[in-house]
Amino acid sequence: MNDEWMRNVRSVEPYVPGEQPNEADMVKLNTNENPYPPSPEVGKALAALRAEDMRLYPDPLATELVQAIADFYGVKPSQVFVGVGSDDVIAMSFLTFFNNPVGLPVLFPEISYSFYDVWAECFRIPYRMIKLEDDFSINPSDYEQPNGGVIFPNPNAPTGLAMPVDTVERIVRANPKSVVIVDEAYVDFGTESSLRLLPSYENLLIVQTFSKSRSMAGMRIGFAIGNEKLIRCLYHVRNSFNSYTISRAALAAGTAAVKDRAYFDETRKKIIETREWSKEELTKLGFHFPDSKANFIFASHRSVPAGKIFEELRDRHIYVRYFDKPGTDNYLRITIGTKEQMTKLFDALREICR
Amino acid sequence: MNDEWMRNVRSVEPYVPGEQPNEADMVKLNTNENPYPPSPEVGKALAALRAEDMRLYPDPLATELVQAIADFYGVKPSQVFVGVGSDDVIAMSFLTFFNNPVGLPVLFPEISYSFYDVWAECFRIPYRMIKLEDDFSINPSDYEQPNGGVIFPNPNAPTGLAMPVDTVERIVRANPKSVVIVDEAYVDFGTESSLRLLPSYENLLIVQTFSKSRSMAGMRIGFAIGNEKLIRCLYHVRNSFNSYTISRAALAAGTAAVKDRAYFDETRKKIIETREWSKEELTKLGFHFPDSKANFIFASHRSVPAGKIFEELRDRHIYVRYFDKPGTDNYLRITIGTKEQMTKLFDALREICR
Repeated sequence: MNDEWMRNVRSVEPYVPGEQPNEADMVKLNTNENPYPPSPEVGKALAALRAEDMRLYPDPLATELVQAIADFYGVKPSQVFVGVGSDDVIAMSFLTFFNNPVGLPVLFPEISYSFYDVWAECFRIPYRMIKLEDDFSINPSDYEQPNGGVIFPNPNAPTGLAMPVDTVERIVRANPKSVVIVDEAYVDFGTESSLRLLPSYENLLIVQTFSKSRSMAGMRIGFAIGNEKLIRCLYHVRNSFNSYTISRAALAAGTAAVKDRAYFDETRKKIIETREWSKEELTKLGFHFPDSKANFIFASHRSVPAGKIFEELRDRHIYVRYFDKPGTDNYLRITIGTKEQMTKLFDALREICR
Repeated sequence: MNDEWMRNVRSVEPYVPGEQPNEADMVKLNTNENPYPPSPEVGKALAALRAEDMRLYPDPLATELVQAIADFYGVKPSQVFVGVGSDDVIAMSFLTFFNNPVGLPVLFPEISYSFYDVWAECFRIPYRMIKLEDDFSINPSDYEQPNGGVIFPNPNAPTGLAMPVDTVERIVRANPKSVVIVDEAYVDFGTESSLRLLPSYENLLIVQTFSKSRSMAGMRIGFAIGNEKLIRCLYHVRNSFNSYTISRAALAAGTAAVKDRAYFDETRKKIIETREWSKEELTKLGFHFPDSKANFIFASHRSVPAGKIFEELRDRHIYVRYFDKPGTDNYLRITIGTKEQMTKLFDALREICR
């Protein structure tokens, strides 16, 4: 057999997601999942699924879910796009909005969600990674150069640092010729959303996910909110890729989740409380970190190398995330779990870092 | 507000899926769904879903589902790729395999799945649509010209005509420099699969779906089987797009479905029987059609225009598919439903076509 067909293959460097171990005793703090189960309404929705309905295609527009999201955020259904997790939504957004006719680069922070450059490479989109300030903050004036699009998370990942909406507005206002995507995957843990800018800026797209604050990573639901025109463009490309992305199960469970505002508020409040307590504990243990507003803390120890801590935690079936890249290779990204999980982590760190 | 950002937007002509009406009395024969529910095992798998598990990401490799598919088809798990319906699998395949360095066109039949040219346009892949013979058959020698890839359904859609595996082999053998994709969405209704060619051809990719023969259009599962090397390329691109595509619900329900071989065989047998009976009834009603091996019949009436029949059926809440394109605009694609559904259709056609 020959492999001449390989000449036609797209060459990529895929994103490497955090490991998904499955041990009964594990403390899993490596992929920013929510330690609490989804709303009890999700359980009811799953229990109500009927196998016989699965023979039919789902609603390609996911009308019920879109309506629930629109109601929750006070926007029109025509302003809401849904996808298979926010990764799918952002991938579609790269395809849709980052096609600069003269090859101007898409801008995003150098230390940020490490999927951005993977998408750009995959779709052959020119890009420029912008250095953060020494304190890991984003300088909005860096995004006032010619570009084919802008994307950044708010709060940023893996730093957890939040940007005030006024600063986001400065970036959006400076780029009327580009779509500016604010990736708000972690916004519900104490950052103000930029949703209130939408009436003023046609070029702003806000992306969120059900995987973090709504405890539904396993169901694969993400969404974008923006101007109707922007959302229509996104659906056109989505419908040139896959018409039916949201299964009947995701549709039912997602709708139930978003309707339960009280549970959502209660859960994120608990995570914020655990995060703030965790900051105190980590400080006592000799760690320093940017002041996270997300459901994780990006922490570095004053004397023990992050790689070593990562390995030793792993030996104890405690999983955190370690990015072995220049600039972040002495940091661990620690997801905020339950108080019990964090106590186990801190007990282990006390041994490892003494 | 201005819309200068529009200059960066990908311009596409999206695929238009069949309508998804939702009327209690409807007879839905327009999107080739299975009239029978999925295996009872799917119901059990859905009932066993636990909401609390949904907080965690699913297995990004969908190991259990991949293993079940590999076992069913007698291949290695490393030869199986899974996606969000076969549309997702084919979209990823276009991205992965159709990147000819000198712009040679991808070849596919002119009358075929109408998503192929949409994907090519969306990804800006040069393509050439090849005319069918007058009897709607595919002439394999037409695919012996320089190309950047080949894709065709077997059986073809919307004609339903099957190609013998020897003819498929001729096309695969003639194209060692390209990946040849055989879209077997409808293969389980009486066409021999080209799976047996896999050991001999590294450049062959076979795509199938759970939406038709396994009655799970609502769950969004499709898969590809090919040489390990080909499958690895596909996962690399998938992992540059979205790491987690198969939800925990799809994983559980899909695995249950594929393990129930007896139910699968029983269901497709019933559909084949109804199809053959439907051919007799349609002939009596004055229709002619290619000899379909799929779960639909592509039929034209000797005197009543297809557009008129389509509209009149629609008024009666009977939905079939009508493609208003040159070459097919006097045909209806009629999905094979239950005997009861087909009886309602034939009763209506007796009125409309008298």
